[in-house]
Amino acid sequence: MTAQLSHIDEDGNARMVDVGHKAQTQRVAIAETRVVLSRETFDLLAANALPKGDALTTAKIAGILAAKRTFELIPMCHPLPLSYVDVRFTPVEETATIVIEAEARTAGQTGVEMEAFTAAQVAALTVYDMCKAVQKDILITGCRLLHKSGGKSGTYDVR
Amino acid sequence: MTAQLSHIDEDGNARMVDVGHKAQTQRVAIAETRVVLSRETFDLLAANALPKGDALTTAKIAGILAAKRTFELIPMCHPLPLSYVDVRFTPVEETATIVIEAEARTAGQTGVEMEAFTAAQVAALTVYDMCKAVQKDILITGCRLLHKSGGKSGTYDVR
Amino acid sequence: MTAQLSHIDEDGNARMVDVGHKAQTQRVAIAETRVVLSRETFDLLAANALPKGDALTTAKIAGILAAKRTFELIPMCHPLPLSYVDVRFTPVEETATIVIEAEARTAGQTGVEMEAFTAAQVAALTVYDMCKAVQKDILITGCRLLHKSGGKSGTYDVR
Amino acid sequence: MTAQLSHIDEDGNARMVDVGHKAQTQRVAIAETRVVLSRETFDLLAANALPKGDALTTAKIAGILAAKRTFELIPMCHPLPLSYVDVRFTPVEETATIVIEAEARTAGQTGVEMEAFTAAQVAALTVYDMCKAVQKDILITGCRLLHKSGGKSGTYDVR
Amino acid sequence: MTAQLSHIDEDGNARMVDVGHKAQTQRVAIAETRVVLSRETFDLLAANALPKGDALTTAKIAGILAAKRTFELIPMCHPLPLSYVDVRFTPVEETATIVIEAEARTAGQTGVEMEAFTAAQVAALTVYDMCKAVQKDILITGCRLLHKSGGKSGTYDVR
Amino acid sequence: MTAQLSHIDEDGNARMVDVGHKAQTQRVAIAETRVVLSRETFDLLAANALPKGDALTTAKIAGILAAKRTFELIPMCHPLPLSYVDVRFTPVEETATIVIEAEARTAGQTGVEMEAFTAAQVAALTVYDMCKAVQKDILITGCRLLHKSGGKSGTYDVR
Repeated sequence: MTAQLSHIDEDGNARMVDVGHKAQTQRVAIAETRVVLSRETFDLLAANALPKGDALTTAKIAGILAAKRTFELIPMCHPLPLSYVDVRFTPVEETATIVIEAEARTAGQTGVEMEAFTAAQVAALTVYDMCKAVQKDILITGCRLLHKSGGKSGTYDVR
Repeated sequence: MTAQLSHIDEDGNARMVDVGHKAQTQRVAIAETRVVLSRETFDLLAANALPKGDALTTAKIAGILAAKRTFELIPMCHPLPLSYVDVRFTPVEETATIVIEAEARTAGQTGVEMEAFTAAQVAALTVYDMCKAVQKDILITGCRLLHKSGGKSGTYDVR
Repeated sequence: MTAQLSHIDEDGNARMVDVGHKAQTQRVAIAETRVVLSRETFDLLAANALPKGDALTTAKIAGILAAKRTFELIPMCHPLPLSYVDVRFTPVEETATIVIEAEARTAGQTGVEMEAFTAAQVAALTVYDMCKAVQKDILITGCRLLHKSGGKSGTYDVR
Repeated sequence: MTAQLSHIDEDGNARMVDVGHKAQTQRVAIAETRVVLSRETFDLLAANALPKGDALTTAKIAGILAAKRTFELIPMCHPLPLSYVDVRFTPVEETATIVIEAEARTAGQTGVEMEAFTAAQVAALTVYDMCKAVQKDILITGCRLLHKSGGKSGTYDVR
Repeated sequence: MTAQLSHIDEDGNARMVDVGHKAQTQRVAIAETRVVLSRETFDLLAANALPKGDALTTAKIAGILAAKRTFELIPMCHPLPLSYVDVRFTPVEETATIVIEAEARTAGQTGVEMEAFTAAQVAALTVYDMCKAVQKDILITGCRLLHKSGGKSGTYDVR
Repeated sequence: MTAQLSHIDEDGNARMVDVGHKAQTQRVAIAETRVVLSRETFDLLAANALPKGDALTTAKIAGILAAKRTFELIPMCHPLPLSYVDVRFTPVEETATIVIEAEARTAGQTGVEMEAFTAAQVAALTVYDMCKAVQKDILITGCRLLHKSGGKSGTYDVR
């Protein structure tokens, strides 16, 4: 951790890292999150019969749009020229769960984890919003990094 | 669920609910989420010794700002004149977890759950961002509605 | 036009109208626009076989989101607490045209034409974006106000 | 169209194209749109005597600002480092029409048509807003691509 | 100061004030700032001969747009339904200074000082931007509240 | 000034400079501004005893976030991939003044003065907002460029 500690602002204030000296490389990050529904809500969503309509398409678009605005939401994130964002959904029948996987890519000087996370979590919030008229105790859970490649710290993959 | 079904767009398309006929009442919502850290990261955060500095203050401000922009992020949400937003943190030593509680209030025609959720999840993402240089396998989990009051559906409280 | 002329800034500079003295009434506006495609593009869109996928759903969500941000885009528009926005599509087989109708509602001190127009035109731009890989000479045309009600100037309707 | 079809998401969902492998070249796009006014409105605009003031200057600035935010408005657009945006107006006396031409330039991996279109249409919406106190049946029409150069598909020009 | 002290968060963290209990009254605020130019720059601006063109019109529109987005920029500000924003310029020949006066109005539960200040300072920054190609040592100075009325604390006026 | 004059739009309209032909170099800019408080307000801020809490941390985050959105606020600014933004505060006891220094860096085709200025002035506005419950006659003053390097015009430094 010596490298990181050398970065510490002496008084503990929040700070943006200067990435100007970092190499510009291809960066990929994939994040996952899960929306746990009741059986009834899951069935309505699967049948596209929710009062507010098509939850997953709405969530996909919301997630992609949010990824592009990560730098506005997360104070110490850098603006990045994203070359690709995707949000994918896997409805898991047995557990009435929507598994959301979001991917971001760029050629840049810093990683795109936060863009992938923002896409995943805003997609999850949108699923919640589309379902909340029929269920209040929805759970958004298990949000974690699945994959990251392209930076100095090498490839991270837990899939 | 008859009430909701009467809202369904015949072809399942996403749609915004017209709230123009709803009563303008005092609305409160509280959402919770959790950031599970490693012991080492938790200790660095607690000692305000993270490379990027003060994680919780940065996360609080990010969460409050994000709540005010919920309508830009969640497609079918209405713009609301929020009268109050707060984001509170409880570091839980035993489990190396930061419990985040976000609250939103308005006098309006629709609930503020999404604003509370957005504040909580963007605060959690900011904690992740402030800690990610020292730990990659951070988990954001257990995001759920704790309290909601003020609408036609009455008070919901699981605390 | 005496009423309007009394508002004129003596030097012709752009100005925002003060709506503080206007009555708060229910306001509705509906705007229309048209995207004229080639036969081939129209058929791909109708078959949901465009390279970038589902054009109309994406356009609907983009239009609704844009309506909520009209005050950020149009300099002299007031921020309004929209109670409802909708974007509807009618594909017209004979002319290979997508007719877009956007509606906005609020209870406020000024009309919602610009919100309806912004929804319609951003939806049209999104249809263009979703189709542009297969056709470059798409036309967006015939954008006009269909209906406006709720203000001092009475109801306007050309449908 | 084989190239495009190979991009198709198997289930027709909306998707962002990955531009990470595309060459970074100089890109230019020019779009046109038209605002058709009544004789009376046209004369007021030409005399800079509209109630809300200088319509064209306001529209120019609104169009330039909007071009820079295209990636926030059009879901599948990529954020681009625009090097130039311009919006030009040609008032056509005979037809009481304002012809708007918008141009965008970048050195990037994808075209700038959507930025040019967004500038043109937001400028047109702003002209509408500045004139709507004196005329309700304004038409925004004839929006099309005039020129595009710099990408793999070669130069397109209809001027 | 007893009233304010009762609001203090026990640990000194930043917080948003809950304005939900405040009376909804007509609120006005006027702020002033000054851009001090060199004689040469002032003359170019006055002759509308700056390389980037009409500085004051651009600054006026930028200031009005920024006022509407104050709640996005200033973390603890509330979103407000502004009914009026204006930015006025007085070029002072003797001192080569542009005096900027910005006014904001709303009917709301909290004051509009920050909206007036944001309009004034973003207008000043825009004047700087329009002039910076010809002068680097421009000064933005003397930014202060001129007038405030409508809240519990009564009218404040230093004009 | 011949170079600039050659840029002038013949009719004095505002215009964005085309930076597409400029060299991509490392750019740094530092701007300064000052918030002059009363003795009482300064002491409350220094003791972190203001009603709205920690003014400087809130201002630092607001300034950094605002720098990243400069291109949305200042009409003729280009979007830039900022590699670093910082906002630093020096409380000056004798004059009850907070000196704010903001720095921006990028590798790009145009300077980052406006980003540094926007960070400094939004930080100052945030300090004002955090203090305004206890003092109304706060002054924001002395905003100027301290340093600029990396462009064709060479290094400028007044420190």
